[in-house]
Amino acid sequence: MNAPTQNPVVARIASLRTAMRAQGLSAYVVPSSDPHLSEYLPSRWQGRRWLSGFHGSVGTLIVTADFAGLWVDSRYWTQAEAELAGSGIALMKIAVASSPAHIDWLAANLPSGAVVGADGAVLGLAGARALESALVARGILLRTDIDLLEAVWEGRPGLPAAAIYEHLPPYATISRADKLAAVRGEMQKLGADTHFISTLDDIAWLFNLRGADVNYNPIFVGHALLAQNIATLFVAEGKVDAALAQRLADDGVTFAPYAQAATALAALPASTRLLIDPRRITLGLRQAVPAGVTVIEAINPSTFAKSIKTADEAQHVREAMAQDGAALCDFFSWLEGALGKETVTEVTIDEQITAARARRPGFVSPSFATIAGFNGNGAMPHYRATEHSHAVIEGDGLLLIDSGGQYLGGTTDITRVVAIGQVSPDQQRDFTLVLKGMINLSRARFPRGTKSPLLDALARAPIWAANVDYGHGTGHGVGYFLNVHEGPQSISPHSPPDAHTAMEPGMITSNEPGIYRPGRWGVRIENLVLNVSVGAGEFGEFLGFETLTLCPIDTRCIDRALLDSAEIHWLNDYHATVRARLLPLVEGAARDWLIKSTEPI
Amino acid sequence: MNAPTQNPVVARIASLRTAMRAQGLSAYVVPSSDPHLSEYLPSRWQGRRWLSGFHGSVGTLIVTADFAGLWVDSRYWTQAEAELAGSGIALMKIAVASSPAHIDWLAANLPSGAVVGADGAVLGLAGARALESALVARGILLRTDIDLLEAVWEGRPGLPAAAIYEHLPPYATISRADKLAAVRGEMQKLGADTHFISTLDDIAWLFNLRGADVNYNPIFVGHALLAQNIATLFVAEGKVDAALAQRLADDGVTFAPYAQAATALAALPASTRLLIDPRRITLGLRQAVPAGVTVIEAINPSTFAKSIKTADEAQHVREAMAQDGAALCDFFSWLEGALGKETVTEVTIDEQITAARARRPGFVSPSFATIAGFNGNGAMPHYRATEHSHAVIEGDGLLLIDSGGQYLGGTTDITRVVAIGQVSPDQQRDFTLVLKGMINLSRARFPRGTKSPLLDALARAPIWAANVDYGHGTGHGVGYFLNVHEGPQSISPHSPPDAHTAMEPGMITSNEPGIYRPGRWGVRIENLVLNVSVGAGEFGEFLGFETLTLCPIDTRCIDRALLDSAEIHWLNDYHATVRARLLPLVEGAARDWLIKSTEPI
Repeated sequence: MNAPTQNPVVARIASLRTAMRAQGLSAYVVPSSDPHLSEYLPSRWQGRRWLSGFHGSVGTLIVTADFAGLWVDSRYWTQAEAELAGSGIALMKIAVASSPAHIDWLAANLPSGAVVGADGAVLGLAGARALESALVARGILLRTDIDLLEAVWEGRPGLPAAAIYEHLPPYATISRADKLAAVRGEMQKLGADTHFISTLDDIAWLFNLRGADVNYNPIFVGHALLAQNIATLFVAEGKVDAALAQRLADDGVTFAPYAQAATALAALPASTRLLIDPRRITLGLRQAVPAGVTVIEAINPSTFAKSIKTADEAQHVREAMAQDGAALCDFFSWLEGALGKETVTEVTIDEQITAARARRPGFVSPSFATIAGFNGNGAMPHYRATEHSHAVIEGDGLLLIDSGGQYLGGTTDITRVVAIGQVSPDQQRDFTLVLKGMINLSRARFPRGTKSPLLDALARAPIWAANVDYGHGTGHGVGYFLNVHEGPQSISPHSPPDAHTAMEPGMITSNEPGIYRPGRWGVRIENLVLNVSVGAGEFGEFLGFETLTLCPIDTRCIDRALLDSAEIHWLNDYHATVRARLLPLVEGAARDWLIKSTEPI
Repeated sequence: MNAPTQNPVVARIASLRTAMRAQGLSAYVVPSSDPHLSEYLPSRWQGRRWLSGFHGSVGTLIVTADFAGLWVDSRYWTQAEAELAGSGIALMKIAVASSPAHIDWLAANLPSGAVVGADGAVLGLAGARALESALVARGILLRTDIDLLEAVWEGRPGLPAAAIYEHLPPYATISRADKLAAVRGEMQKLGADTHFISTLDDIAWLFNLRGADVNYNPIFVGHALLAQNIATLFVAEGKVDAALAQRLADDGVTFAPYAQAATALAALPASTRLLIDPRRITLGLRQAVPAGVTVIEAINPSTFAKSIKTADEAQHVREAMAQDGAALCDFFSWLEGALGKETVTEVTIDEQITAARARRPGFVSPSFATIAGFNGNGAMPHYRATEHSHAVIEGDGLLLIDSGGQYLGGTTDITRVVAIGQVSPDQQRDFTLVLKGMINLSRARFPRGTKSPLLDALARAPIWAANVDYGHGTGHGVGYFLNVHEGPQSISPHSPPDAHTAMEPGMITSNEPGIYRPGRWGVRIENLVLNVSVGAGEFGEFLGFETLTLCPIDTRCIDRALLDSAEIHWLNDYHATVRARLLPLVEGAARDWLIKSTEPI
């Protein structure tokens, strides 16, 4: 009998346990995060993946002397179950990623006096406080000054080294100097003379710089320290060429080595009044601040400022949306021609849709990994087809495609579901309910300053009316040639309480209700919408949504009897706009497909 | 020249300042609260009213050596302006009652090292923590161990002395012993062996007792201390007769003097694991707890339990609603006959509506002060007509009446707006928009556990669509022969973040959107609705609303063209139900009025 090949994870966990014993730790916590609390992690900080073998983007690993468990939310249960097989790591199911179930587990399973370890350099401050107070209440100690990965991860990758480049006019609509002045003004309003920023999209926005240190998000790894006469970027050496360095120097921006960010914080004089954002800085960096410094906690001024797109930015986004929609016409007309003639798989779709976008001016990269899910695969909101595991598009059903592009003039994110062969009445009903929800939110008006989570029910009401619901939020903020997911606004019941979710003109948000029938099909319809003023009067200013996304919605999937006249009017009006805006940008088969697909119903 | 009569408030503030100087205080804060954080305050704790002369129910008075200001929300601006005239107290306008503007004022206007005083016995713990941390951040000290009112208020009223009585079966549907056992079970789940309760509706509910210590809410003043074998009620002497004391003793309930509540807390042994609700206990009582005691903070189990009415309770409420609706038919048919024949004022309306209710079985008292506002007066959501200031109902316009009753089998709260003479198209439009909002929420379905604030937008959407909004929440929880305002659920964007606002079957909530045109008219339509299950399936259990309130909605105020067919169907269906349920309970003119008022549109 041959010994089975051992899962490499088993040895990794074993060496972690050895390191834990050496430090006297009862448990070690490995979150899915980096020193910048990013959504996409440079490989250097994918230690949870390396240790557990689970490739999903979110999950928390906890290892004790006799237990190892990975807490993952419902999006990843199937994937985690497969990838954890043979690892000895238990799958701990939680409903949503923000669940504190792993904290409860530690509190319930460790004895008083136990010591829990974690790397404070990658623990978000707000989350670390919750962890610590839960453990302290049970007499458990939290040590956050140890990065055990450094000891056990042989061949751990270094810092990403991609070059930093400038986001230039006309796409950059506010100069770096003006942005720095605006943030310094906000600092003064908050009574701060110094400000430290770790979040990569904030830094990219503030300095009009972009990078390629991770997939999809055009950011670079760094920290920033700002005072009234100081602007220091902490980045790895070799990322900025001399010409760019000079242009930055002209705006008073200097550079320091990446590793010196904590040192610089530690060197702040006691008279400093330091502004930090507790949701956007790590525990490790917070702890580097000397005790005498006055710390002012508030949302990063840049986080709020960048969520409000200028009129010029909105116009660039409209143009990027037209190019994106035209690329999708190219793609969908190719798809229609290819089906039945050649083998089309979920992977082919990803390739073709990216290729269609890449032919468009201003395109830089996809804005996230394309989700192309046929029938049952479409019921997994974060499904990703791979070379090894994917479906062939054939027979009947619904094909869900969620994709997007980074353009110099904006970031796109769109989901469409199209009919393949015959569509059943049940599928049409689900599609139409989702469409009603999407239209209901699109047509909403609301007072300026309405908290974005409160709008969520408007998209759900028509779906709830059929005793159906969906597990994700309805909408997320979208960056401007930046992260496809950005805050602070969020049309979601799961939003953390935050004073800065008020809707303001210029914000771009997704509108993407869905219905998922596990193993059968999934429907999601997603447009990006811009907050625009629709008038002011005795009850103040009211906002509405301008739909930015331009792409036909497959009318073959609609049960027209379920739509009321206002909804039909909205749809026909939308399709007339799509046709008028995209027609100048498409030719041949794509043109024919566009005309056919935008006929009124 | 005669000296003008001095406002008595001037002397009161002066003697407060003398007392402040004696204690070395830079400022003294007088909130509108009592040791039980009640909505309706016994006169003993109406010190803010006595000191300021402002009779509104909510406001915070701050006095310094050279300044006195009263922070009041928009409901009370007009009233406060009139009542503060000549007092030397500045009116400090805030948008909503929960605004921390007075805290900001203290932090901004007092020097570091200043000492602020307040009576901790009437400061809510959660609010006191916010106050203290804001002051500490500015180097200002907060002293909460001094009740200056005791020194300056000559003839301060004592404790209210009304007798306590029992809420008996069949109206009390769960025995006292079962309720005590259930709360003790929840205490155990939370790891607590002892529980202290200050909120008067919690105590009334838990012990199946009622009282008459304030208007409108059938509660009595007391505290309760619970352990597995102890149930002590701290109430003033003479409130419980021997027979009732014996029945309570049979359930293990003993009595102690009201003033000994803090003493009892102070005497808890260090091994105690004490459950308290930080939103429902004062700072003073929290500070009485010895340092060694383990304090567990959570919502009072009774607060959540009493919000979920039993099936029998819901049935009693339906019966009370029928009596209440029949009383309203009596009233409205009287009103119709009286107008034009005798002088009808807003005060007459209050008298007549209360008299109509008082003729109904089970009626105990009004559940709040009737709001009867004609035209411009109806635009003030908390208007109250008085003998000295009220309108005569004559000419054309809208009459808004918000009223309710306490019945042994439930608490009612209803708002109707009726046409007087001619109703203008603008008035009809506002009325119809409010009706659409009320119907939209009435028809909503949503997953069990949906957070109540998220439903608020469903009532507002049709109103927002016309660039109109209203400043109050859409719905509040309602007690069962208890407080007309109870939590924890709240259909409002102003709800504090709270984990216990999830909608559960059995909850009773108001549904009361409105539109207010200052100086012209106000519209509010309010029904109480019961959360009921409407089915369960692959997406879990869904809830909907059963409308409990039974009273015609004035169809003369409706612009039918603004209603869609589903809304017309809802209204006709509601009126058919109202007619069927009330017809057996009314006679003569009221019967004719009911039939006429429930004709389909």
